[in-house]
Amino acid sequence: MHILITNDDGIHSPGIKALAKSMKSIGEVTVVAPDNEKSAIGHAITIHSPITVKHSYFVDDKVNAYAVNGTPADCIKLAIEVLLSDNLPDIIISGINNGPNLGTDVIYSGTVSGALEGSMMGFPSIAISMSKSQFKSYDYAALFVSKIASRILDCSKISPITFNINYPVCDEKEVKGTKITRLGVRKYRNNFIRRKDPRGNWYYWMNGEPEDLIQDEKSDIIAVSDNYVSITPLHFDLTSYDLIDKVKCLEYEKKKC
Amino acid sequence: MHILITNDDGIHSPGIKALAKSMKSIGEVTVVAPDNEKSAIGHAITIHSPITVKHSYFVDDKVNAYAVNGTPADCIKLAIEVLLSDNLPDIIISGINNGPNLGTDVIYSGTVSGALEGSMMGFPSIAISMSKSQFKSYDYAALFVSKIASRILDCSKISPITFNINYPVCDEKEVKGTKITRLGVRKYRNNFIRRKDPRGNWYYWMNGEPEDLIQDEKSDIIAVSDNYVSITPLHFDLTSYDLIDKVKCLEYEKKKC
Repeated sequence: MHILITNDDGIHSPGIKALAKSMKSIGEVTVVAPDNEKSAIGHAITIHSPITVKHSYFVDDKVNAYAVNGTPADCIKLAIEVLLSDNLPDIIISGINNGPNLGTDVIYSGTVSGALEGSMMGFPSIAISMSKSQFKSYDYAALFVSKIASRILDCSKISPITFNINYPVCDEKEVKGTKITRLGVRKYRNNFIRRKDPRGNWYYWMNGEPEDLIQDEKSDIIAVSDNYVSITPLHFDLTSYDLIDKVKCLEYEKKKC
Repeated sequence: MHILITNDDGIHSPGIKALAKSMKSIGEVTVVAPDNEKSAIGHAITIHSPITVKHSYFVDDKVNAYAVNGTPADCIKLAIEVLLSDNLPDIIISGINNGPNLGTDVIYSGTVSGALEGSMMGFPSIAISMSKSQFKSYDYAALFVSKIASRILDCSKISPITFNINYPVCDEKEVKGTKITRLGVRKYRNNFIRRKDPRGNWYYWMNGEPEDLIQDEKSDIIAVSDNYVSITPLHFDLTSYDLIDKVKCLEYEKKKC
């Protein structure tokens, strides 16, 4: 199995190194990841400036690693179209993210967008995140992904699926199992800090504490708070099919003169 | 009606000026938009650096305009939480984008993400784009939005909807009417140009020509190619509900020791 790995915390982050090491035990690994942190970059792509690539190695020099001055979505496009065009991956994995990618927040996530870009290009993919921001070991989450990867490949035989996985941050013995979930809702309060810069001009810094909202019992947010590994299948079709018939009143033919 | 306008081409682009002018005829307008071009920025938000704001005026000094050194999603968050917190908008409009936002490409679009952020924050919203990149007048598309805005507000009474509108680039007499559509599929070939920089290092520049794909007859791509105004209702829930039952095989409870 050839596994392509990216992330949004940057190629030097501990999460991506733990993931590469673990996946090396089940197949060939190639890392193509941003050369610096790209958290909250969403599905941005770089079209107005050139993209550069620097080659190095991971995991005792056994894993090819490419540092890209772009976003996670850039990394996947460049990997598939250029760097790995002669040796395409079987699966794309993005992470391990330092912190959760849960609920409505996934739309801002570079980690999730890297995985979604994979499915858009026809490859099964996984985004893997820790359910809390943490500097502890990523090893259990990395081991989990290496164990579930082949089953995820089986699920994706008909069409490539993106799985958004959040691993609970608790004692490993307390992890209860896995739950297939839907995305919950995340909202924040006190979103901006307002301060004056050294020249006396106001600036704003995005902040925000998550609101305590009543979540659907089947949501990813509930699953990880109950110490389950949350697995949510994602899609990239933003059409609201439910609404198409309800807004048909806006459709008209112009009268011909 | 209070109308909040943003875009991703930047506050100095002709599309946003045409839109502000047209919307001024039906209500109070506030412009909060990026201070430079942010095309293809997706749903990125700025969390690792401060955001600054400069105030100016549009449309014969009758429209308050704020230039923000951030993304379209930043602009909407800052507008709702800070700049307009005492005078919230009734509707949010993002555009007029120079070029199409059709099919799977909408996931990369800053213009669409600005509108989607609006719905995520509870406001009805419109993304408006020209179906081809063009430097001609935006006036017909701007007039169209000013005419349809109140009907879109009516549709959004139960819950706030994002409408992705693409206006056909043809002689105005040839515009046939409107179609409610779903997103089509856009794929590209020859995605990267590879060149050497002045120091002899390779760099890559994202490019790509759209492939000729067979599109669903009800897609936005077909509608605008047939000279209709395409209107697609969007959502921001990336959960693939269709797949939840199909991937239940990945769910398990750990055995207790």
